[in-house]
Amino acid sequence: MNFFLRIMALISVFTVTTQLKVCAQERPNVIVFLVDDMGWQDTSVPFWTQKTPLNQLYHTPNMERLAKEGMKFTNAYSTSVCTPTRASLMSGMNATHHHITNWTSPQKDNNTDSQDQQFAQANWNFNGLSPQPGVPNSAYATPFPELLKKAGYFTVHVGKAHWGSAGTPGANPYNFGFMVNVSGHAAGHPQSYFGEDYYGNKPKENSWQAVPDLEEYYGTDTFLTEALTLEAIKALDAPIRNKQPFYLNMAHYAVHVPLQADIRFYQKYLDKGLDTREAKYASLIEGMDKSLGDLMDYLRLKKVDKNTIIIFMSDNGGLSLVPARGGQAHTQNLPLKAGKGSLYEGGIREPMIVKWPGVVKPESVANQYVIIEDFFPTILEMAGVKKYKTVQQVDGKSFIPILKNAAYKDDQRILYWHMPNKWIPTDGPGINYKSAVRQGDWKLIYNMRDRTKELYNLKYDIAENRDVAKENPEKVDLLSKALSAQLRNWQAPMPMDKAISKSVPLPDE
Amino acid sequence: MNFFLRIMALISVFTVTTQLKVCAQERPNVIVFLVDDMGWQDTSVPFWTQKTPLNQLYHTPNMERLAKEGMKFTNAYSTSVCTPTRASLMSGMNATHHHITNWTSPQKDNNTDSQDQQFAQANWNFNGLSPQPGVPNSAYATPFPELLKKAGYFTVHVGKAHWGSAGTPGANPYNFGFMVNVSGHAAGHPQSYFGEDYYGNKPKENSWQAVPDLEEYYGTDTFLTEALTLEAIKALDAPIRNKQPFYLNMAHYAVHVPLQADIRFYQKYLDKGLDTREAKYASLIEGMDKSLGDLMDYLRLKKVDKNTIIIFMSDNGGLSLVPARGGQAHTQNLPLKAGKGSLYEGGIREPMIVKWPGVVKPESVANQYVIIEDFFPTILEMAGVKKYKTVQQVDGKSFIPILKNAAYKDDQRILYWHMPNKWIPTDGPGINYKSAVRQGDWKLIYNMRDRTKELYNLKYDIAENRDVAKENPEKVDLLSKALSAQLRNWQAPMPMDKAISKSVPLPDE
Repeated sequence: MNFFLRIMALISVFTVTTQLKVCAQERPNVIVFLVDDMGWQDTSVPFWTQKTPLNQLYHTPNMERLAKEGMKFTNAYSTSVCTPTRASLMSGMNATHHHITNWTSPQKDNNTDSQDQQFAQANWNFNGLSPQPGVPNSAYATPFPELLKKAGYFTVHVGKAHWGSAGTPGANPYNFGFMVNVSGHAAGHPQSYFGEDYYGNKPKENSWQAVPDLEEYYGTDTFLTEALTLEAIKALDAPIRNKQPFYLNMAHYAVHVPLQADIRFYQKYLDKGLDTREAKYASLIEGMDKSLGDLMDYLRLKKVDKNTIIIFMSDNGGLSLVPARGGQAHTQNLPLKAGKGSLYEGGIREPMIVKWPGVVKPESVANQYVIIEDFFPTILEMAGVKKYKTVQQVDGKSFIPILKNAAYKDDQRILYWHMPNKWIPTDGPGINYKSAVRQGDWKLIYNMRDRTKELYNLKYDIAENRDVAKENPEKVDLLSKALSAQLRNWQAPMPMDKAISKSVPLPDE
Repeated sequence: MNFFLRIMALISVFTVTTQLKVCAQERPNVIVFLVDDMGWQDTSVPFWTQKTPLNQLYHTPNMERLAKEGMKFTNAYSTSVCTPTRASLMSGMNATHHHITNWTSPQKDNNTDSQDQQFAQANWNFNGLSPQPGVPNSAYATPFPELLKKAGYFTVHVGKAHWGSAGTPGANPYNFGFMVNVSGHAAGHPQSYFGEDYYGNKPKENSWQAVPDLEEYYGTDTFLTEALTLEAIKALDAPIRNKQPFYLNMAHYAVHVPLQADIRFYQKYLDKGLDTREAKYASLIEGMDKSLGDLMDYLRLKKVDKNTIIIFMSDNGGLSLVPARGGQAHTQNLPLKAGKGSLYEGGIREPMIVKWPGVVKPESVANQYVIIEDFFPTILEMAGVKKYKTVQQVDGKSFIPILKNAAYKDDQRILYWHMPNKWIPTDGPGINYKSAVRQGDWKLIYNMRDRTKELYNLKYDIAENRDVAKENPEKVDLLSKALSAQLRNWQAPMPMDKAISKSVPLPDE
């Protein structure tokens, strides 16, 4: 081989390598599998220190599989209702900061708070999140899918969006950096899960909650959860073929009301002795679990499972209102207290699992607390997006250190919840007009109605049954100050006390 | 510089070049800009040998600009109604062959033919096109966007789809190889063009024709044509950024009924003396033209205009029914006879312009006849997709030889139209139960009602006013045989003559 040929051979080897480096995928795919209104115990995967009767009731084999392959987070938090959580996910901001503190109406300029004798409505951002400035009562932010798209990711949203009201940019997932949107819009729940009902789109029966984009399945027995899964798989075909890294926001409408039977799993739960309402709920859970399994199977079939991160999460606690749910009110998330809408653990603690092949140790468990706004910096870091600009200050903190070390511990960090809203007409446990903080094992709840404070030590009292405020005045004082400082810092909306025509005072006032 | 460094320098130069070659775009982008129900004369661009009063009436500066930069086709054809044309575009098949010979209902299994005393309904494919086999009364075909997607194109559909009925795979643009779909579904026209009307999506007022996916614009004054343009531009952001070639199926709902004023252009046409109905129509035309201009401006801004092919086309002739349109019936496409639904030229001849920088000579004119199924092989050839498999036999013929040589002539080719349907309750000129062929300048029309035949020489009689069948019996015989042979070959559906309980005989029988 002469000298020239040697150089050429060297060059050609180099070139091939370069081609692969340039075009083939190196960055991981990321899927956020977000379930709606799923409680911490609505699964056969135990997230507590012990297996509960609820864990024995629900059957989620694919969550079990995911937990075996990934890391279970026992102290993962959302907010207590849907839009705030979804806005925090998209913006990386705490709800106290983005001021979307209650669910948004699909109709613009519609404050969804119930009327109240004591309080006038707080001035929260009831039009939701907006990727464009200048929209009244909305939070302007740069959504992370926009940053992923700019970094070359193929970004897909399937299912429930519920980020902003119709008539605003927040109603349109294409404004959030998503390149594909199937069925995401301004509404927060499906009118119907049934293909037979056209998912609520029958002309004249149509409502704001009719699910768009699924005409293919009208008149068939394709349950909504299944239809969304099929559409998600279609959307991933191109990026997988092109070796383009993708981000999939797989946001199921399940298991939000209306509770309707996913017929593939319904009978099984009737046979277990559940009433029809709870059997429907359980069938929604297992249908959602099948979707997770179908996606995992698809990734394996396409040989991208080893390069795909899956983050399983729910947007708030399980609904615990009766008769919407069966049984006795506020027992549906035991051992956690209350449920959706409440700042007790039942309303905010979520089943979270992360699979990251090669990084996360299989079947590991992390007890460090994390919260929904942490997803923003974490996902960007996973995707290798390091320098980015956002119009908002991001509050979340990457949980990659935890993924790399399940024993990671930070008991100084403070998490915040703030709901200066009247979610339902009658106050419930932890429901309506509350703020809360958690630091270490301590949790303080501030009741705006009577300005009382509750203190719990979650290590010993996960059920929040024993208020230890009186025994720990310094802790109450410390956490009250921390909460108040942050409410001031973020200019958090507060309800107006009608009697004195003033905002409700902060906890330290 | 030592020897090693020289080699490294050489390699690094080579590598950079390779990177560009591998990832940068070489293949052209393609946009099909498909207007709905636009007639051959609904533009200030003259497609006839002379400028007509209609050309003087309508103002389409961006079509003029496109014609200056591209090639005008004076003899471009679609079918006479929407779904057959759209199915031919997607499948490359003649409508006589795919058997979707009338418009499809958004509702499955719904034959849209009017009832008739003489004829029972033909067994046409009233569920439309299907990218999957096994759907009753549908044509199974491989759509070209699927082939483009597999070849690495980023494929986008925006606007009217109308390929198949709800409850079938044809209702879903994602089944056609589109990676993005905005507002395409089973319906053939918008319920409303107005953002103020939510495009027909107001709950309870909702209909099959409510336009999906545009909640962002609800309650605003964003006209449908504008909203679709904005969404198309959003969709192109990622492929342009990634230097990925794209295909955009920009399929406007305009200018189909309901005729509603595009307020940006309405007053101008009232001032010209048009009645409100025709002023609305003209405003729809000019709004569509603005969309074309906005897209062209965007391509230039993004510096991809020189690598983007634009094909402008309409799906059938301009509507000529009164009182749906103003004026005297069937004069709206003069000098052409009749309009939408008719096999006279007014129903099938279309304004077509192709811009292909570097290939098509600017401001050129091609008189060779082409037809909508020709788009399929042409676009694939433009995209460099050479070897591909389709489940259907493609009937179309690439018109790239014409694009490269405006003087290209083939007067032996035969074009076919077949409509064994009752489109409207009362027969009109060329409307209901007709077949037709064109070869060279000769055109034969077969009337199934009375089995008569008409013959026209389009060179001397573009208005089809002088039936020369009697003077040219050999030509009638020749074209009748050609038409019959193809109807047999493609097993074309025929109406059933109730009196004799037999299919209407073919023209040569």
